[in-house]
Amino acid sequence: MSSSLSFDLDPWSIGLSGVDVDELERRESVFALSNGHLGWRGILDEGDPCGIPGSYLNGVFERFPMPYAEEGYGYPETGESVVNVPDGKVIRLLVDDEPFDVRRGELHRHEQRLDFRAGTLHREVEWTSPAGRRVRIESTRLVSFEHRSIGAVRYVVEPIDSAATVAVQSEVVANIDLLDVHHDPRVKAVLEDPLEPIAHDAIGTRATLVHRTRRSELAIAVSMDHLVDAPTEADVRVEVAEDLARTTITSRLDPGERLDVLKLVGHEWSASLSTSALRDRADAAVADAVHAGWEDLVAGQRARLDDYWSCADVVIEGDLRLQQAVRFALFHVFQAAARLEVRSIPGKGLTGAGYQGHAFWDSEAFVLPVLTYTAPDAARQALLWRRATLDVARERAEHLGLEGAAFPWRTIDGRECSGYWPASTAAFHVSADIAAAAALHARVTGDERFERECGLPILVQTARLWMSLGHHDDRGVFHLDGVTGPDEYSAVVDDNVYTNLMAQRNLRAAAEAARRHPAAARAEHVDDSEIGRWTATADAVAVPFDERLGVHEQSAGFTRRERWDFEGTAREQYPLQDHFPYFDLYRKQVVKQADLVLALLVAHDAFTPDEKARAFAYYEELTVRDSSLSAAVQAVIAAEVGHLDLAVDYLAEVATLDLDDLRDDTAEGLHLASLAGIWIALAAGFGGMRDAADGLSFAPRLAPPMTRMVFGVKVAGHTLRLDVRPEATTYRLASGPAIRVRHFGEVVVLVPGEATTMATPPPIDAGRRPVQPRWRRPRPARTALESASD
Amino acid sequence: MSSSLSFDLDPWSIGLSGVDVDELERRESVFALSNGHLGWRGILDEGDPCGIPGSYLNGVFERFPMPYAEEGYGYPETGESVVNVPDGKVIRLLVDDEPFDVRRGELHRHEQRLDFRAGTLHREVEWTSPAGRRVRIESTRLVSFEHRSIGAVRYVVEPIDSAATVAVQSEVVANIDLLDVHHDPRVKAVLEDPLEPIAHDAIGTRATLVHRTRRSELAIAVSMDHLVDAPTEADVRVEVAEDLARTTITSRLDPGERLDVLKLVGHEWSASLSTSALRDRADAAVADAVHAGWEDLVAGQRARLDDYWSCADVVIEGDLRLQQAVRFALFHVFQAAARLEVRSIPGKGLTGAGYQGHAFWDSEAFVLPVLTYTAPDAARQALLWRRATLDVARERAEHLGLEGAAFPWRTIDGRECSGYWPASTAAFHVSADIAAAAALHARVTGDERFERECGLPILVQTARLWMSLGHHDDRGVFHLDGVTGPDEYSAVVDDNVYTNLMAQRNLRAAAEAARRHPAAARAEHVDDSEIGRWTATADAVAVPFDERLGVHEQSAGFTRRERWDFEGTAREQYPLQDHFPYFDLYRKQVVKQADLVLALLVAHDAFTPDEKARAFAYYEELTVRDSSLSAAVQAVIAAEVGHLDLAVDYLAEVATLDLDDLRDDTAEGLHLASLAGIWIALAAGFGGMRDAADGLSFAPRLAPPMTRMVFGVKVAGHTLRLDVRPEATTYRLASGPAIRVRHFGEVVVLVPGEATTMATPPPIDAGRRPVQPRWRRPRPARTALESASD
Repeated sequence: MSSSLSFDLDPWSIGLSGVDVDELERRESVFALSNGHLGWRGILDEGDPCGIPGSYLNGVFERFPMPYAEEGYGYPETGESVVNVPDGKVIRLLVDDEPFDVRRGELHRHEQRLDFRAGTLHREVEWTSPAGRRVRIESTRLVSFEHRSIGAVRYVVEPIDSAATVAVQSEVVANIDLLDVHHDPRVKAVLEDPLEPIAHDAIGTRATLVHRTRRSELAIAVSMDHLVDAPTEADVRVEVAEDLARTTITSRLDPGERLDVLKLVGHEWSASLSTSALRDRADAAVADAVHAGWEDLVAGQRARLDDYWSCADVVIEGDLRLQQAVRFALFHVFQAAARLEVRSIPGKGLTGAGYQGHAFWDSEAFVLPVLTYTAPDAARQALLWRRATLDVARERAEHLGLEGAAFPWRTIDGRECSGYWPASTAAFHVSADIAAAAALHARVTGDERFERECGLPILVQTARLWMSLGHHDDRGVFHLDGVTGPDEYSAVVDDNVYTNLMAQRNLRAAAEAARRHPAAARAEHVDDSEIGRWTATADAVAVPFDERLGVHEQSAGFTRRERWDFEGTAREQYPLQDHFPYFDLYRKQVVKQADLVLALLVAHDAFTPDEKARAFAYYEELTVRDSSLSAAVQAVIAAEVGHLDLAVDYLAEVATLDLDDLRDDTAEGLHLASLAGIWIALAAGFGGMRDAADGLSFAPRLAPPMTRMVFGVKVAGHTLRLDVRPEATTYRLASGPAIRVRHFGEVVVLVPGEATTMATPPPIDAGRRPVQPRWRRPRPARTALESASD
Repeated sequence: MSSSLSFDLDPWSIGLSGVDVDELERRESVFALSNGHLGWRGILDEGDPCGIPGSYLNGVFERFPMPYAEEGYGYPETGESVVNVPDGKVIRLLVDDEPFDVRRGELHRHEQRLDFRAGTLHREVEWTSPAGRRVRIESTRLVSFEHRSIGAVRYVVEPIDSAATVAVQSEVVANIDLLDVHHDPRVKAVLEDPLEPIAHDAIGTRATLVHRTRRSELAIAVSMDHLVDAPTEADVRVEVAEDLARTTITSRLDPGERLDVLKLVGHEWSASLSTSALRDRADAAVADAVHAGWEDLVAGQRARLDDYWSCADVVIEGDLRLQQAVRFALFHVFQAAARLEVRSIPGKGLTGAGYQGHAFWDSEAFVLPVLTYTAPDAARQALLWRRATLDVARERAEHLGLEGAAFPWRTIDGRECSGYWPASTAAFHVSADIAAAAALHARVTGDERFERECGLPILVQTARLWMSLGHHDDRGVFHLDGVTGPDEYSAVVDDNVYTNLMAQRNLRAAAEAARRHPAAARAEHVDDSEIGRWTATADAVAVPFDERLGVHEQSAGFTRRERWDFEGTAREQYPLQDHFPYFDLYRKQVVKQADLVLALLVAHDAFTPDEKARAFAYYEELTVRDSSLSAAVQAVIAAEVGHLDLAVDYLAEVATLDLDDLRDDTAEGLHLASLAGIWIALAAGFGGMRDAADGLSFAPRLAPPMTRMVFGVKVAGHTLRLDVRPEATTYRLASGPAIRVRHFGEVVVLVPGEATTMATPPPIDAGRRPVQPRWRRPRPARTALESASD
């Protein structure tokens, strides 16, 4: 909404012409490259002007002391923040000694384009220096999916009209400030200069910097080398100091001649390796990449993406902006996870330092289901990371006086880093979300080893958490008091329906997994009696329902609270948390993000269609969507209850959230969960896809402007694609054994290689379109999408 | 409990023999002197060894930035902390060049005694220096009730056996560290060196230091002068530097000769006066005191106390420790307030820097009622201070999106200083407590001008707070959701009974005051319609009651919560807040301090006797008394419902809380509200005193070891004293018009000068003694009181 960036329209890429130096931060997030291990923001090659010059390695962070005005038992003492690792993206250019700078001289042409199939960020520039030398510059940047530690830039300069001496300064620079990650001056002080130089080397044309974070003591090696192609021998100089490695390549070029520089940067980090071993790893990665060469890197990149798209691609016909937005989203979701290797997916992926680089529950609740269906290997790595932090979560539970495992609200290395317990420690649903993601992964992939070694321990420990967290009343009903659900405008409530139903599923999944893997369960000291208690407790979970209104209560007593004064709230008073105290938000009926409505999706079989319709209408009036996690879920349930036009409006909102910077914070990184939410809005919303113990069910219905939607899911490793048109849906299973799905409740057996077409039933009469709070109605899709963009 | 200090037994003083250097901090709190303007902790004159060398001026504080791990709307940005003002207590002694130090040489005798009638701290020492010179030292310290800014020390030295050269170094020392008032290093840094030297002067024998706090910009002038009496002319030198003024008095004394030094220290501070005007004020105060001389100071001190004790004294027969403890408490309550002049009574008075010198709701809920009945002028000053902060409280309410005034949870100058909103901002009852104290004061004193100018504005603005804070449900019931009551182990609850009933009384008191003072009400823009809304809303307030159990719920749903596992909680796990997270405390049935039981006292007419008995028994099982504010209230209700033996145990606990250091924090200052609570336990508990619109009612019943209790209250300025014996109570009104009181419900008309004796009815059969949580039963009075002490 607030964006003045005007991305072009293309089905498989996104591009921007020109440079507005005030908008660089947003562009850098949108054009960020990552493979889940290394993240490079989409800064201009020359590093200046620059918005936020981020280079991140997943898992590299610095610790800092958490400040509190008043201490309390169980408050985390140590925070964690992502830091900038030494930045290897920078390539400065001098043309006859004039530095190339988009703000100086004359910029005839400037194009940046992120290509979803190539996996590259391409840039084309034509520029005349203040002294009148005109050059063409072309750069292609990639963060390799094949070579995990490698970021590469191919940089080509060509004088036009007249000869010029061209110097390329290619750098690795350390200790770049993160900017504004924390307001507390003590925390800022720690994060301003987090890297201690340990070693620096130059061997031949290869230069390496080794640093160590001062408090968390993680060592980082960044190594670079170059392949140079010039019409005559170029002059290559390598310099290296503690915080800077620089290779300068100078060449005299006639018009039409090109200096072609390939920069290869290797990134390794470790908490335990020796400095020299680590340096050697980074060097070896670069040597490997040098050996492979540019064409190989580019081909590998495309091959990995071809494989991904073969299932993950969603074809949308009827609106090109939506088509582009969906692929943009799925590209970034893949980038965030492609080469994780037992690491987390932070809230912003590796596209920015927002949320200090922390991972939240939305990774499991939004991103991992999408990956499980489209890139299951990547999802598994993220779940293995949670598994690796299980001991820390068990310690946390013990510290809180609980059994089992309490996973952190926000973290980098697994330790709780939140400084406000009502919205974090009390939000125990995070543990159920993780358990659910693990259970889903096991169910969808059929990966028994995963279930046994990763899923089961997580399920058992989280089941134990719920057993110790809740209590039975004198009628035998199981209550979870004093917890916080997804809605951050309520906190410390009793019997949050989402949490209770997720706990119920958690207990049941633990029981089922333990029955399937008795030996592994025994190793976790699970006996039949414990399984029985889980099952009985799951059956006894309280689900508050307001008989008077005929709707489920978000939590006990919620519907009896005072309603927020939406009419008396001005447009500028949103987001509410910036203008009203928590105490006032918490005690009134106002919903930041889908909570009960999220329960309608994840616990879809716990509600009748009529209950869903009434609950959706009720909570629509209260939901302000001050969180990016809401619109996708609202789209899904709007579609289910028959408000397809409203579902399209929400879809359009999710689809444009980062591209149009609707939340005015895309500068800090992309909203990974919201990007994954686009897929959820499409597959679960317009595809009507739901997961149940007996398989997938679908209920596909399109709505304008969509005239066709094709999407795919992997079931037990085999791709099922649905080709949805208004009147019918065609199911195609690529390979594997036959599977059973449901189409609007009807069982359909799908055989590999055969297309099965099923008709769409007549539309639901959903009645009056639900009303949202004043100022918080979604903008109409026709404004948000293609019709408005061109 | 943990104390090894063994105070002697005396009805009108408290004394200690010997010196244990590890116990100095506690002694200094117990022996603190104050007049409400100036506070001097009871350190040894020579300042070394020393526990916590406090000198405080009421209202002098420094600001500091409040640190937060995660920010939120409405969080206070600036904290306030009391600071040490330049310390004028110190008098060092050298005997033949050997410094007097209780740790060196031989200490033959060391006695310190606080005299409740003289208002002095007296010390007697006999000491032989390491070189063998024996001296007798006698010092008497006072903080003057007559001369508000004056602290004085009379210091007398006398050699024994052989002649000696005696040098007395008398000092004012600035920038003494407060020690450990805050864990945050940034806050510590601000408070370590808060005073900027502005000026220092010596004129004749008078020396003055002027400082200014660096951030809050309050100027402080401390001036000293000396009167010296010596057998031969003593040598007197005065030196002054930025942070130190020193007068050295040297004299050669034969055995039996005495050097007699009277030190007079004046203390003034101001936010607005010029440096020279302020200095001149301090100088003038000292000159005045010099002119008055020691005998006058001492006589004035005693006269003020005689006046106070004439009403306030409580005679207890049957236990000397209890007698002493009661007078000790009442002496400190008076000290905290005697010369307030529109300032607050901090939680610790001016006896220590605990709670950073902040004032809380317990000032109004516990201390001011006692003062209103015994020293009403002092109570009025504290209420005028709240009145003076009303505009700040209105701004706070507006910032929180509310109408009227929201008084701060903790403050020095009226601004909210709490960094944890669920236990502070949400504890709106503080505003009702202030309103109730103002209404009580107006009612008891009959001071119409006070009611019009101070009570009414407070009542009107707090009534408006409740109207905007609450909401009516569809049945017309008025709810206050998401607030925190007195019990700090619950927070952000709906319809806390204490809060609701206090709000009800607040609304009614506002309506009554507005009707009594229509012109003043109009000036506050109160019209009839608003008065009508207050009245109707007061009648509609929700009072949650559990029909199943037949008890009132502390807040809606409280009695349905899980019960705390008291049996599974170890003795060392108390106080619970140090060993369990808030989230776990909040969601379970566990009560830190009387909450519903406090409502039984302050809203005594809202409950039937049977409801009180059942509620008391129910909450006894849940109340852990991790707050010092609880035992007194429990004593009162225990007595009311007929458990006199339990009431005595609680009385003994309150009475010994600071003297026996039961909470292990007497070092940081005395618990003013708990000290006032002793009077409440006696008057409201064993005297059965209650306040109602139609006058006072009493229901006096003693219990062993008490055989007699005499106490007094001022009604409309006239003293009523009750002489309670087991079988009967004699009422005596000293002067004024006849008044009506109730004795066990029976109306009695009391005529001045006439004694009326009324019989005590037969005892109540209260049934089984209520049970407290394991490890939290009060120790039996027989252990706590006299029988154990001697």
